[in-house]
Amino acid sequence: MKILAIDTSNRPLSVAVMDDDNLLAETTLTTHRKHAEFLMPVIEDLVKKADLVPTDLDRVVVAAGPGSYTGIRMAVTAAKTIAATLHIELTMVSSLLTLCLNVSRPNVFLNPIFDGRNQNMFTGLYKLDDTGRPVTVIEDQHTNLTDWVKLLNHYDEKIMIMGDTAAFESQLRESLADRLIIADKLTDIPNAARLGNYGRSLAPVSNIDAVVPRYLRLTKAEADWQKVHPNEDTHHYVEKI
Amino acid sequence: MKILAIDTSNRPLSVAVMDDDNLLAETTLTTHRKHAEFLMPVIEDLVKKADLVPTDLDRVVVAAGPGSYTGIRMAVTAAKTIAATLHIELTMVSSLLTLCLNVSRPNVFLNPIFDGRNQNMFTGLYKLDDTGRPVTVIEDQHTNLTDWVKLLNHYDEKIMIMGDTAAFESQLRESLADRLIIADKLTDIPNAARLGNYGRSLAPVSNIDAVVPRYLRLTKAEADWQKVHPNEDTHHYVEKI
Repeated sequence: MKILAIDTSNRPLSVAVMDDDNLLAETTLTTHRKHAEFLMPVIEDLVKKADLVPTDLDRVVVAAGPGSYTGIRMAVTAAKTIAATLHIELTMVSSLLTLCLNVSRPNVFLNPIFDGRNQNMFTGLYKLDDTGRPVTVIEDQHTNLTDWVKLLNHYDEKIMIMGDTAAFESQLRESLADRLIIADKLTDIPNAARLGNYGRSLAPVSNIDAVVPRYLRLTKAEADWQKVHPNEDTHHYVEKI
Repeated sequence: MKILAIDTSNRPLSVAVMDDDNLLAETTLTTHRKHAEFLMPVIEDLVKKADLVPTDLDRVVVAAGPGSYTGIRMAVTAAKTIAATLHIELTMVSSLLTLCLNVSRPNVFLNPIFDGRNQNMFTGLYKLDDTGRPVTVIEDQHTNLTDWVKLLNHYDEKIMIMGDTAAFESQLRESLADRLIIADKLTDIPNAARLGNYGRSLAPVSNIDAVVPRYLRLTKAEADWQKVHPNEDTHHYVEKI
């Protein structure tokens, strides 16, 4: 199965072309947020370097959020467009889980964090199963540090944080003390090859047109719209606007 | 410190540009062995994507062997040329150790293997220290599987093999039984960002002109030359030929 994997959830852009679990070509960039400018040329370059043409692809795996609004919209839109155009499968993976794929250390809980501004965060809690795949301990959510720490305190395990951790480290250190492990900086960057390999065995989405990013919180526009359309869910907002 | 990291020790080509421990840009390709054709264009592209010019670089970190003769000669020659031309530092890292940087799992021994043809192998044994850096348990060497297994049997730890392991797995499984762990295929591929980060804190070589790849065995040409020059070491062969 030839796979194109894409993650532009935050500042890094990572794209890989895989043949089953074999990496063919991968590029990761962190120097700018110009995903709109760089994403398609990087995809085209990697497909070519992998000695493939786009119609050879069987599946697109995308890190679908949470993350920056612009970043996850860009990735999901590119992935939907490619999948629909080529009539191939589309598989969505949590952008938080994607970071956990950088770790091969068992017996610790993995806590990826993306900054949600104003003391808020997107986060979830994972551990590796016997085969080394991340499984959910606490679902991905948009929350604040105080509430998150209360949840973490239900567990005794060591907790490795990764991602946009800088704003939260000192308070987490206070609460978790020597249970806290801070991953190195390279673990903060998504690896599209590992994303593609993980997404290889998941079910594809059944209705590509209906796919939206995993925002995990409402935009201001959606919140405003919901106030005046209290009986409709926000999927209708996306369809109508 | 701006770092260019290069690994073309075997089939994969991995190049990264780092700013200290921050990844700026990285590309990894596995689809061909045309390192001579691809290496310099990939380096130029990544330096540009990192918004740098070559004279911004402070250090080149190269996976210097063991590995394929052509691959490690290509990487070391490119690294020496760039370092000498730009008057910047050059740091060499074991290509076997480089694979261990893909693992964050403590309490197992890490056993990277490159195929040396004719039942021979390039291999070494490592473990991660408290900071997660690989340290040597058994020095890198060119050996055969029978002798290597005897060395491994001095230890009780679980052993994770990675690299070109296919030719050796069944015999290692027989000897090591449930002590054997086979890394996933993505762990077999060097990651230049991790190479650059590891090489950041090592001492640079003092004499760039004298650098040769870490072949760890003689070429046939060197062996023939040594027979007729029994009192000279093979560094003189490289200088004279």
